[in-house]
Amino acid sequence: MRISDLSRQAGVSIATIKFYLREGLLPPGTATGRNQAVYGENHLRRLELIRAFTQIGQLELTTVRQLLGAIEDSRQPIVQLYELVDQACSTPEPGKGASAEHLRGAKSDVDTFLDDLGWRVGTVTPARERLTAVVAALRRLGCECGVEFFADYAAAAETQAVKELDLLSADGAEADRAAAVVRSVLLDAAMAALRRLAQEHHVATRFGLVPDGAARRSA
Amino acid sequence: MRISDLSRQAGVSIATIKFYLREGLLPPGTATGRNQAVYGENHLRRLELIRAFTQIGQLELTTVRQLLGAIEDSRQPIVQLYELVDQACSTPEPGKGASAEHLRGAKSDVDTFLDDLGWRVGTVTPARERLTAVVAALRRLGCECGVEFFADYAAAAETQAVKELDLLSADGAEADRAAAVVRSVLLDAAMAALRRLAQEHHVATRFGLVPDGAARRSA
Repeated sequence: MRISDLSRQAGVSIATIKFYLREGLLPPGTATGRNQAVYGENHLRRLELIRAFTQIGQLELTTVRQLLGAIEDSRQPIVQLYELVDQACSTPEPGKGASAEHLRGAKSDVDTFLDDLGWRVGTVTPARERLTAVVAALRRLGCECGVEFFADYAAAAETQAVKELDLLSADGAEADRAAAVVRSVLLDAAMAALRRLAQEHHVATRFGLVPDGAARRSA
Repeated sequence: MRISDLSRQAGVSIATIKFYLREGLLPPGTATGRNQAVYGENHLRRLELIRAFTQIGQLELTTVRQLLGAIEDSRQPIVQLYELVDQACSTPEPGKGASAEHLRGAKSDVDTFLDDLGWRVGTVTPARERLTAVVAALRRLGCECGVEFFADYAAAAETQAVKELDLLSADGAEADRAAAVVRSVLLDAAMAALRRLAQEHHVATRFGLVPDGAARRSA
């Protein structure tokens, strides 16, 4: 298909496609003449991946480039793919500025919590650091909610991790690898959305508000 | 305390504090002389809030300003505070570029899912839009995982929403309002971290890797 068709089908502007081509995020099309090229299904799929990562996952292009590279490189074992996602979705220095004392206390609580769950996880992964930073910040801000607050989520996360892995085939095909990364990144947004929706429902219930109506419209 | 003490205690540089003062994110201190002012506990607490929102919540300063204003304005009912958090944490146009057909199918599935849960939620909230965008994107990318995939998380989100509301006192004091917003924003990061940790554990288990060791170090 021509670039204009690609643009229409992917819902991405021609200017953006040209930018991705220049940046190497999208492989070049097949040249059909001077300044003309045709693009295939792989370009369409790649554009949809990029859009999902940037638009829903809110990832930066340098991170997207890394993820795409790792998806394509089938020598990278799937465990490394998940590690990369963890890094890609992490925030730099989540605990920066927190006092050593707060961080130590939070770290010890997180360690105990994860040990009790029986999870075998690295001692220095970005995810563990982020969880520690959240616990430390909540404590520092006087928002009492201990790690046990997370138990239900941990159980749900575990159930879903297993379900997600069940969806992968053993041969680690590229489509599978892409799907693993896509789910891992996008489901964060889904989970956050579910939290808000549950909150909305229960706030409305508790404060006796009319559903989907008065409170919102009078805002 | 002086600005240097505030900086040290909050773990935020003097330059950043001055920037927040200029931007009105931090109220001015009490003047004690020409170009000198002292700051109180409220400044320290405010700085910690700003840091939690920007560093862990990854929110932009304009959003942080809105949230801080809403926390202070006790006339705003708590339901509006949660709505604001939903907007603050939402991504602009999450479904942009998706075909109308994909979005329609996803919307219908999300509607049914939320109806089945019995949640009374607005028909046009950012959270619902985000969830719809994720479902549409997964489908478009051929990553089969239906809405029922989210059932465990929905249950956990509901349990936690109730627990979070139980922590609030009825009078809607400012500290309470701040805590509600802080938890709502920060716990997203904690939940995402738990997902990664559960993945790490189950990937290691399934692929028979040594915990916290070989795979990571050989990376």
